[in-house]
Amino acid sequence: MKHWGDVAIIGVGLIGGSIGLALRQRALADNVIGIGRRQVSLRIARRVGAVTHTTVDLAKGVARAELVIVCTPAGQIVEHVRQAAAACPEGTLLTDAGSAKQAIVEALDGQLPRGCRFLGSHPIAGSEKGGPSSAQANLFEGRVAVLTPTRNTRAEDFDLLEEFWQGLGSVVLQMSPEEHDRALAVTSHLPHMAAAALAVTVSEPCFRLAGGGLLDATRLAAGDPNLWQQILLMNRGNVLTALEQFGGNLSALHAAIRDGNEAELKRFLTTAKKNRDALGS
Amino acid sequence: MKHWGDVAIIGVGLIGGSIGLALRQRALADNVIGIGRRQVSLRIARRVGAVTHTTVDLAKGVARAELVIVCTPAGQIVEHVRQAAAACPEGTLLTDAGSAKQAIVEALDGQLPRGCRFLGSHPIAGSEKGGPSSAQANLFEGRVAVLTPTRNTRAEDFDLLEEFWQGLGSVVLQMSPEEHDRALAVTSHLPHMAAAALAVTVSEPCFRLAGGGLLDATRLAAGDPNLWQQILLMNRGNVLTALEQFGGNLSALHAAIRDGNEAELKRFLTTAKKNRDALGS
Repeated sequence: MKHWGDVAIIGVGLIGGSIGLALRQRALADNVIGIGRRQVSLRIARRVGAVTHTTVDLAKGVARAELVIVCTPAGQIVEHVRQAAAACPEGTLLTDAGSAKQAIVEALDGQLPRGCRFLGSHPIAGSEKGGPSSAQANLFEGRVAVLTPTRNTRAEDFDLLEEFWQGLGSVVLQMSPEEHDRALAVTSHLPHMAAAALAVTVSEPCFRLAGGGLLDATRLAAGDPNLWQQILLMNRGNVLTALEQFGGNLSALHAAIRDGNEAELKRFLTTAKKNRDALGS
Repeated sequence: MKHWGDVAIIGVGLIGGSIGLALRQRALADNVIGIGRRQVSLRIARRVGAVTHTTVDLAKGVARAELVIVCTPAGQIVEHVRQAAAACPEGTLLTDAGSAKQAIVEALDGQLPRGCRFLGSHPIAGSEKGGPSSAQANLFEGRVAVLTPTRNTRAEDFDLLEEFWQGLGSVVLQMSPEEHDRALAVTSHLPHMAAAALAVTVSEPCFRLAGGGLLDATRLAAGDPNLWQQILLMNRGNVLTALEQFGGNLSALHAAIRDGNEAELKRFLTTAKKNRDALGS
């Protein structure tokens, strides 16, 4: 397992903080430099042990980095990678943890100065709770991390990042950015939208009647509106397609109930159960 | 707290089994008679301690009952209450645990023979896992149980059932059957449909990319298709209205994303978060 010298993490929220914690608990890096805008988050990241050093100065933070991981909200990743690539050592590898990849990879792939390279990552882990105080060293254990190489990607960069995520306990999958975004629109962005639309539909007089099912079905809606607004707009085309597929399935369900079509309704609910059972618990 | 002699439970699945377990662990009844169609379920119910006696003969099971609780699937409740009312002691109180109330109450209210009375109950507790082996004595603790009296309901029957559910740890709410069904269409039946439609939309190649959010958002879809088909059709009018409201909210979300309307998208996600946060965890 490669041992890193300095790893710089830009954005020490749940994901960035958890990467730092995991790196330190597994002794995979000498120094973890946490870079953020707010001293208060950086202090928490240091206190929970997610980072060894902190700074609000991005250029200073990446100055000695062997690896830079950008964990800021999706809409800021491109800008932060560019800023980091301008200030880090020559030939540094940079990655991210964004939930939409195509726009980010298109903007950065093969376009960084001074021999720096960007290769997109997406660890499929998270929670509706954000911030470094929610960070967990085992957040990535047994979870999938997707790498999205292109024809510009060097094999050794892919291998390094594969080893990096495996070192944090992840199972690494390789997908094209397009493939990733199409799939995540369905598995992550659509459930978020469904949860949000459900939460909007439930009005206050009903809250006291909420059972465990409603709590589960709407849990994602507690996520940060700012983060999610950016993800949904960055993956707009796929997100709209996923919403339309979902809408089509809801219409089929509506028709079966309206028509009192027991056979069709049962077939729908049975397919749903089969898929859900296959997802595991 | 009233102590019961014989309580008969028709249908010893998750709900019926949990009622029996709670009655026995809290020593609220001398005998709990479990009535079912399948010996195998009845054996499990006896083994887990949910019932003291079992029978597949409904008439025999209710012959000495002071209270009859029908916990069979929604579509069978009316028939089972009628059968029980024909065989139990004169003047017995009967209730149920069905998730849709209006059709059931309309069919039974003030219409039972021999001085027997039906008063509808709905304990808002459950799980996607059914069967007596999933029964829990604390399933109702701190959860809402709705009673749906009508102008035919005797005050002493309401008081008895209020005390019954409170004895199991529930918080009792009073609603009309219509009010109950309108609210539950939104808080329970709609989340079930959303989860099912999500699970239908996610196809197999995506399963390996499932994160915790997708698992939560689709959890309800693992429920029994037979039970849910009956509930959705029994509450058809309200269920269709709830689906249409949900569809309207999804359309608003679709339009905001399609138009790249950041302000509107953020407003939507913020309302969703506010509602979800108010629901608790």
